[in-house]
Amino acid sequence: MRFSIQKAALMQAIQTVSKAVAVRTTKQVLSGILLDVRDQEIIATAYDLELGIQTRIVGSEDNQLKIEQPGSIVLPARYFSEVIRKLPDTVITMQVANNYMTEISTASVQFHLHGIDAEEFPKLPSFVGVQGLQVQSSMLGDLIRTTAFATANTEVRPILTGINIQCANDKLTFTATDGLRLATHYVTLTDAPKWQAVIPGKSLIELTKILASGDDIVELYLTESHSLFVSGDTRFYTRLIDGTYPDTSRIIPNGHKTEVIVPGDDLLGAIDRAALIARDRDNHMVRLELENTVLTVSSNSPEIGNVSETVESEQKTGDDLQIAFNARYVLDALRALDAAQLTIRFNGSTQAFVIEKTGDKSVLQLISPVLWR
Amino acid sequence: MRFSIQKAALMQAIQTVSKAVAVRTTKQVLSGILLDVRDQEIIATAYDLELGIQTRIVGSEDNQLKIEQPGSIVLPARYFSEVIRKLPDTVITMQVANNYMTEISTASVQFHLHGIDAEEFPKLPSFVGVQGLQVQSSMLGDLIRTTAFATANTEVRPILTGINIQCANDKLTFTATDGLRLATHYVTLTDAPKWQAVIPGKSLIELTKILASGDDIVELYLTESHSLFVSGDTRFYTRLIDGTYPDTSRIIPNGHKTEVIVPGDDLLGAIDRAALIARDRDNHMVRLELENTVLTVSSNSPEIGNVSETVESEQKTGDDLQIAFNARYVLDALRALDAAQLTIRFNGSTQAFVIEKTGDKSVLQLISPVLWR
Repeated sequence: MRFSIQKAALMQAIQTVSKAVAVRTTKQVLSGILLDVRDQEIIATAYDLELGIQTRIVGSEDNQLKIEQPGSIVLPARYFSEVIRKLPDTVITMQVANNYMTEISTASVQFHLHGIDAEEFPKLPSFVGVQGLQVQSSMLGDLIRTTAFATANTEVRPILTGINIQCANDKLTFTATDGLRLATHYVTLTDAPKWQAVIPGKSLIELTKILASGDDIVELYLTESHSLFVSGDTRFYTRLIDGTYPDTSRIIPNGHKTEVIVPGDDLLGAIDRAALIARDRDNHMVRLELENTVLTVSSNSPEIGNVSETVESEQKTGDDLQIAFNARYVLDALRALDAAQLTIRFNGSTQAFVIEKTGDKSVLQLISPVLWR
Repeated sequence: MRFSIQKAALMQAIQTVSKAVAVRTTKQVLSGILLDVRDQEIIATAYDLELGIQTRIVGSEDNQLKIEQPGSIVLPARYFSEVIRKLPDTVITMQVANNYMTEISTASVQFHLHGIDAEEFPKLPSFVGVQGLQVQSSMLGDLIRTTAFATANTEVRPILTGINIQCANDKLTFTATDGLRLATHYVTLTDAPKWQAVIPGKSLIELTKILASGDDIVELYLTESHSLFVSGDTRFYTRLIDGTYPDTSRIIPNGHKTEVIVPGDDLLGAIDRAALIARDRDNHMVRLELENTVLTVSSNSPEIGNVSETVESEQKTGDDLQIAFNARYVLDALRALDAAQLTIRFNGSTQAFVIEKTGDKSVLQLISPVLWR
């Protein structure tokens, strides 16, 4: 193996794949990055057996890639990445010498890093002959960002640590719930095949960081055990979570006793401030009182003090109400919605309530109340 | 106590004093900020008994300060600071109600925080009638930044955790050493009084963060037990470290066997890269070999690999040399010097070596070698 390339291009590839490098592992090869140098391109891969990321460098005027001898090597990710980062912005030459010892050099600097035989690196799952689904990159990012925070953090019910992705009847829907809140978001896709999988929320959050922006198309592929997202030159592999996802459609209420429309920033600010006083309590409990058209958000702590703030609603129908909730859950939901105007629908103080962007039913946030005390 | 003020002005005062708030303390009042509201001004103070910071807000068109009733209160710094930070950018009203309960409010928000009786707050040391010393703010910042990193981190010899500040013969000198390296920096002051004190390095690093920039004058005052730095409306109090500072003048070598002049950035880059391979070893050992006019910087680790880099010197007199050193020490010294051109003077491979900015003797960095292996 021997090639030369501009530092920036190599650094970019390392950064792209590095999120899939195993952090704590006894299998040393998993904490490495596989470089597979072919006749016309370099393929960089990291794979911790849960998440795999692969990216490709092809020669360009910019990156000045020159491949002199194909070959492959696994290099320890941490050192490889820091060595490349600290090199000057210039052309770097890499070659494997005896015993997997790899030379990384510029005109004045010579590093040698101990590598590992590329044969030891695990194979990525195969997706040959699988039918794909196409989504715009920015749309996929939105679907993930508006739902992933509502997945469960703990492994008590592993299926809830994933996002349930369903495609049916020209609708692609992402749903996440930890049992106390639910976030669901759909987009319309025409001529899309049927599709269903539960994919780890954490992996999908990593995916958002490397997605191309804008209108670029991402392709989604699925097998019994894995999914694959292809975005430009980068391929993102994740395992699926086994098990049956709960039927969440049943828990979304149809009717409501109270509906209120409020300015999004005002409500977000009020709950953010109330959360300050609530945060030392386990359930971060904040109270909301709705009387006529005025919402009062409040919280108190015997040790710290209390806070009370009023928000004027823009429209209100139905009953007055008192309800309490976990401020963190509502803040997550409001930040995900990122709306100038919010519609909130309540069914009394003991039932879950729904928050949506006013006039837009594509994203729905459902939150269980804390029982009023 | 009752006053109103623009949020930004109050936030600024809280941030200025907050570095002196006690972090871990059983004495609750020390984790608070004292607000002392007088007829024409507000004095904010934090004091953890080691470090004290006090700042003053006087009314201006900008801050819209209106004092309706003088008085004082101690508020828990963490909550006070976050409450003010999260309030909208507007005029804030504060008043103390019953039992030290303090109301912080805007048109729509009302916070109440439990305060503490101002009488419980410790008194700052007194500096009445003490003669001062005047230094430019930027000059004082430089004196601290070029020396503080060389203080000892551990309390084995407490005196070495301080910077030795001496003023004599129209020279103000800052010196720090941890026993393996030494940094010393002087500036010329005319008509300055004699002055000597050992001040905790950590406190002085905090001082650099709140110093006014540029040509503003800072006044330094000294008593038997404390020092005071006055910069604009802010007063910075620190205790002194007891004991006799070692006579460091004796360990700075007079002559040299080798002198070399090198480009600062090239040497910094080379040692920074070599440190990557050296950093898993206790002493971060990097080797330097000087042969004719070429410096070779290298490092190796049986587990990771090795690195070697050449730097062309601009001038060299005296013997060739091989020496080894702790890369972190040299990097600290080079970053403090921040010089385009460095002059390094060696006395063989077992003696401490001196690094200076070429043509400037005001800052000197001295580093003990690691014995050659």
